[in-house]
Amino acid sequence: MQINKAVITAAGPGQTSLPLQRLVDRDGCEKSALEMIVEEVDAAGIESVGIIIRPGDEDAYRRAAGKHVERLCFIPQSEPKGYGDAILRARAFTGSDSFLHLVGDHLYLSRIEARCAEQLIKIAIEEACPVSAVQATRESMLPYFGTIAGNRLPRHDRLYEVKRVVEKPTPTQAEQDLTVSGFRSGVYLCFFGMHVLTNSVMNVLEEFSSRYDRPVSLSEAMSEVASRERYLAYEIQGTRYNMGVKYGLLNTQLALSLSGVDRDRVLTEMVELLAHQQNISTSA
Amino acid sequence: MQINKAVITAAGPGQTSLPLQRLVDRDGCEKSALEMIVEEVDAAGIESVGIIIRPGDEDAYRRAAGKHVERLCFIPQSEPKGYGDAILRARAFTGSDSFLHLVGDHLYLSRIEARCAEQLIKIAIEEACPVSAVQATRESMLPYFGTIAGNRLPRHDRLYEVKRVVEKPTPTQAEQDLTVSGFRSGVYLCFFGMHVLTNSVMNVLEEFSSRYDRPVSLSEAMSEVASRERYLAYEIQGTRYNMGVKYGLLNTQLALSLSGVDRDRVLTEMVELLAHQQNISTSA
Repeated sequence: MQINKAVITAAGPGQTSLPLQRLVDRDGCEKSALEMIVEEVDAAGIESVGIIIRPGDEDAYRRAAGKHVERLCFIPQSEPKGYGDAILRARAFTGSDSFLHLVGDHLYLSRIEARCAEQLIKIAIEEACPVSAVQATRESMLPYFGTIAGNRLPRHDRLYEVKRVVEKPTPTQAEQDLTVSGFRSGVYLCFFGMHVLTNSVMNVLEEFSSRYDRPVSLSEAMSEVASRERYLAYEIQGTRYNMGVKYGLLNTQLALSLSGVDRDRVLTEMVELLAHQQNISTSA
Repeated sequence: MQINKAVITAAGPGQTSLPLQRLVDRDGCEKSALEMIVEEVDAAGIESVGIIIRPGDEDAYRRAAGKHVERLCFIPQSEPKGYGDAILRARAFTGSDSFLHLVGDHLYLSRIEARCAEQLIKIAIEEACPVSAVQATRESMLPYFGTIAGNRLPRHDRLYEVKRVVEKPTPTQAEQDLTVSGFRSGVYLCFFGMHVLTNSVMNVLEEFSSRYDRPVSLSEAMSEVASRERYLAYEIQGTRYNMGVKYGLLNTQLALSLSGVDRDRVLTEMVELLAHQQNISTSA
């Protein structure tokens, strides 16, 4: 398995403006979220990036891409037909190749030297099958993520054979069907927003999109893949930050800053602001 | 003096993407910085808003304006000829009327019930002359702001007669020419990014732009206004947050959150992140 292409989805409702947001990275450099996502892909050795966008967003994205603009291929999703359809739009770009897929509204912070995408691609090449990055996630966050049922592989600490994927399960559903042995209760393995996908996913998405007259989620497509062939989940050594939830951008920026070169400066500014705001509250 | 129009400048280099940034306001509502700026204007009773933009940015701004889009008039600055020129582009929109001017890369947090723009307009109407909002600002921030020399009016605590304005003075220049009696050393009265301007400013900008073959700053135009007529500065009861500086968006969001309804939630999340990041640093 070779992985030379990445597909980023950024056409979903509420998602389109997130890659345009400005953040300061761990090295203290100001850039757009889009630049950071492309750097994640770049650090994994991938040259060619296809981005699924809403028609009309290309100019804004070109501006936000900075020096990476030349390697981007923009793929408009002409109608808002959901996440599965967005990925399927990339088929002309991916051909029959396996590819890395990232969502445009997440940023990823690795806990080790290898970045998150690099960790995932290494595993996918070793195992030669589709692999979804997952993260142990609290029950309260289930409404935001696809969640897997699976068994840990005996020879690998962080690797799971996926049996099933459920999109945004309820807590009851999760407790009944998606508990992972060895995890404490109320913690599940949820999608990290990063996958290595193969042509078989594209085939399933195509079948489902002609079979169903409704949006198809990536979770249900991957659940079908799991029933047909070997499909793994890898617990990344890192954390995903979902910029699309309330205070998501704030938490993403804080996580970047507090694990980066400007940690002390940002902590100092936080303390000053707290003191100042306390002042305002008492004087108001 | 009546003030029914507002002019927002958003065409400056490094400034154009800031009104598109997503933030959560004090009431816990997610919106774009542009929506928050228009709400500031709206709360001061102003209906009609002209925005100076870079050509090509109109679509992105229309999307970011949300429900306020109908009241916006987009005014492209065809060439990047500076701040003074940007304001002068609004002349067809303002006619000979006085108007409120806000910069598109700041957000304003009032310390009292009346919002910042409302405070400023009240003073401008009472005094019937151009008034710039100012804020006591530390020496280290001088590189970002226009700075005034002036004398406090005897009958009003927060009101100054402006003698001179210097754009981004050096600390030496500020110490020699811009100290304000009653202020401790190293603290100056700097622009807040909010002004009530009159037709006389437009006249000066027009004169200067035909006289000089270089960008004209608002500061030098206002300095000229001060030499011709009564021009005041008002120390607003509030704080401006410059989103355009490094960590400006982070500090703006923290300031909004820590003085708003979600203060406890955001504090809790900050503490959790700090604990978690500490964990990462020690385990890495």
